[in-house]
Amino acid sequence: MDTKKRILTGDRTTGKLHLGHYVGSLQSRVELQDEYDEFILLADVQALTTHFAEPSLINSSIYDVAMDNLSVGLDPEKVTIVQQSQVSSIAELTIFYSMLVTVNQLRHNPTIKTEAKNYGYADLTYGFLGYPVSQTADITFCNADLVPVGEDQVPHIELARKIVRKFNELYGTSIVEPQVKLSKVGRLSGLDGNAKMGKSMGNAIYLSDSPQAVWERVRNAVTDPARITVKIPGHPEICNVYKYHCVFNQGEVSNIGEMCKNAAIGCVACKKLLNGALNALLDPIREKRHYYEEHRNEVRDLIISGTAKANAVGNANLQDIKEKMHVII
Amino acid sequence: MDTKKRILTGDRTTGKLHLGHYVGSLQSRVELQDEYDEFILLADVQALTTHFAEPSLINSSIYDVAMDNLSVGLDPEKVTIVQQSQVSSIAELTIFYSMLVTVNQLRHNPTIKTEAKNYGYADLTYGFLGYPVSQTADITFCNADLVPVGEDQVPHIELARKIVRKFNELYGTSIVEPQVKLSKVGRLSGLDGNAKMGKSMGNAIYLSDSPQAVWERVRNAVTDPARITVKIPGHPEICNVYKYHCVFNQGEVSNIGEMCKNAAIGCVACKKLLNGALNALLDPIREKRHYYEEHRNEVRDLIISGTAKANAVGNANLQDIKEKMHVII
Ligand code: SF4
Ligand code: SF4
Repeated sequence: MDTKKRILTGDRTTGKLHLGHYVGSLQSRVELQDEYDEFILLADVQALTTHFAEPSLINSSIYDVAMDNLSVGLDPEKVTIVQQSQVSSIAELTIFYSMLVTVNQLRHNPTIKTEAKNYGYADLTYGFLGYPVSQTADITFCNADLVPVGEDQVPHIELARKIVRKFNELYGTSIVEPQVKLSKVGRLSGLDGNAKMGKSMGNAIYLSDSPQAVWERVRNAVTDPARITVKIPGHPEICNVYKYHCVFNQGEVSNIGEMCKNAAIGCVACKKLLNGALNALLDPIREKRHYYEEHRNEVRDLIISGTAKANAVGNANLQDIKEKMHVII
Repeated sequence: MDTKKRILTGDRTTGKLHLGHYVGSLQSRVELQDEYDEFILLADVQALTTHFAEPSLINSSIYDVAMDNLSVGLDPEKVTIVQQSQVSSIAELTIFYSMLVTVNQLRHNPTIKTEAKNYGYADLTYGFLGYPVSQTADITFCNADLVPVGEDQVPHIELARKIVRKFNELYGTSIVEPQVKLSKVGRLSGLDGNAKMGKSMGNAIYLSDSPQAVWERVRNAVTDPARITVKIPGHPEICNVYKYHCVFNQGEVSNIGEMCKNAAIGCVACKKLLNGALNALLDPIREKRHYYEEHRNEVRDLIISGTAKANAVGNANLQDIKEKMHVII
């Protein structure tokens, strides 16, 4: 029997995934796929909360996000890829949970506060305010044991646990209280010096980018500004390229740092080394992606069969929950 | 082909229905059942918004409300009885609509304001705040043309129309913009003088009440307080019993009013006349209800088959909506 613990993770379908996603979550998904039963959510409904006016972006991103996940090495035989908008039990659970959360609890959730600031507080939509509620449904429709999140997302999972506890107490259900699986690696900053990598920042290196596009970003990276000639010793600790070497070129990074400090390497050469390291990572990803681009129907089938499996799991859980709630006549 | 306009109406499953419901909506449902295609929603999810801690009440009320509707003369061959919690397309539409409504719009909705005051503003739940959003889904999952509501509910339907218009514009869908069908008869006050009849008021005359229980309410009715003996002429315009004669005893009411003003009838005799009129209305309802009480499985089958029909309609509409939203891959 399948006794693996279940992990729920996923991505909003608002564009292709980039190196920030890779470092922040995709990489660890690949590492965990043998030990855990992973559900990868293509979060197209959640994408609507901010991108409701861009349906065609959401549509193309359903494929893109699925292909990005497959290309980094997630094995479709091991993980379950689930399209959120096709799983009605998530929507139904969201409605049930919404009775057990106060508006004040949501307003004081730090993530909602931050996000509301980013997208405008005055016109906060009802759906946006309820993001932690629907996230609770995302996690629990399949009784996931673990949710890999960063430190900043911990309050969300705390709220999810609170909702589940209250629900279980009230109705005698046994929905699994999800636990946080803290991600080790933090956020990847941009090569331009911006603290965050993202589409809106214009600094993203996408997993599907061509070698030319990658080199463009690397070439334009902001380095130690004091290093106007090769002869001036550099300060790697304030250099964005060096930060990337730390993440993507661990074998060579200490050597590179020394050379920089000793004025033994120029920034252009240093960038070329990084470029080489990035392409060493991205080349096999590009190769897998090329395969899936050529076999879109296979991707489609994987999404559809994963979603069917998720619906079977979710509907069975929901039926049990509804019975305990005494709404099955 | 079925070219009848569709009406969406229904009741929260938070207890048996009483004369207030009869006068306010059940009576007109019966009158309209030939001309319109009526969907009667057993609103058990909406019941959860205020009664989430009382699952067994909600469960028994699913049957009670169905039987009340059948007992007043709704023909199961003509109307469709739908159990809200078993229709996933309502939940899914609620989630989609929630992206298009701001928290501020909901906060300023007069019904939410009133209800929030009644049930406590500080602990307003997320689900409660979203009541107009889920009501929009209730109405539109089956593309209802008309919603019979009282004057006070008109702002709700206005908001529903606004949501539907915005949704249709955004995604090119053709969800029917529901129209208000204003109810003629207003609220029935209590025989105890309270402006509203309700379970919480302790003044309700239920459609399923025994003749004894009805007489108990009528006997204790508050009449013209100045009329301490039969010899003192009465003021029917301030008498609760008279108000009921106006509604339930239209043939005799003017005669009764005259007799009261002329001290030609005592309050006890007058109450007995009202009691007779109420039982004339309730006796056939009791008879039908008795039948359904004895045939609970038939009620169950009617709810299940009506809900299946609603799901077929709702799922087809939802599929079309999702295609237009480009989330069908
Ligand atoms: S040599 Fe490399 S680490 Fe040093 S400043 Fe230039 S790019 Fe940065
Ligand atoms: S006689 Fe009838 S109408 Fe007049 S005060 Fe008494 S109960 Fe009311």
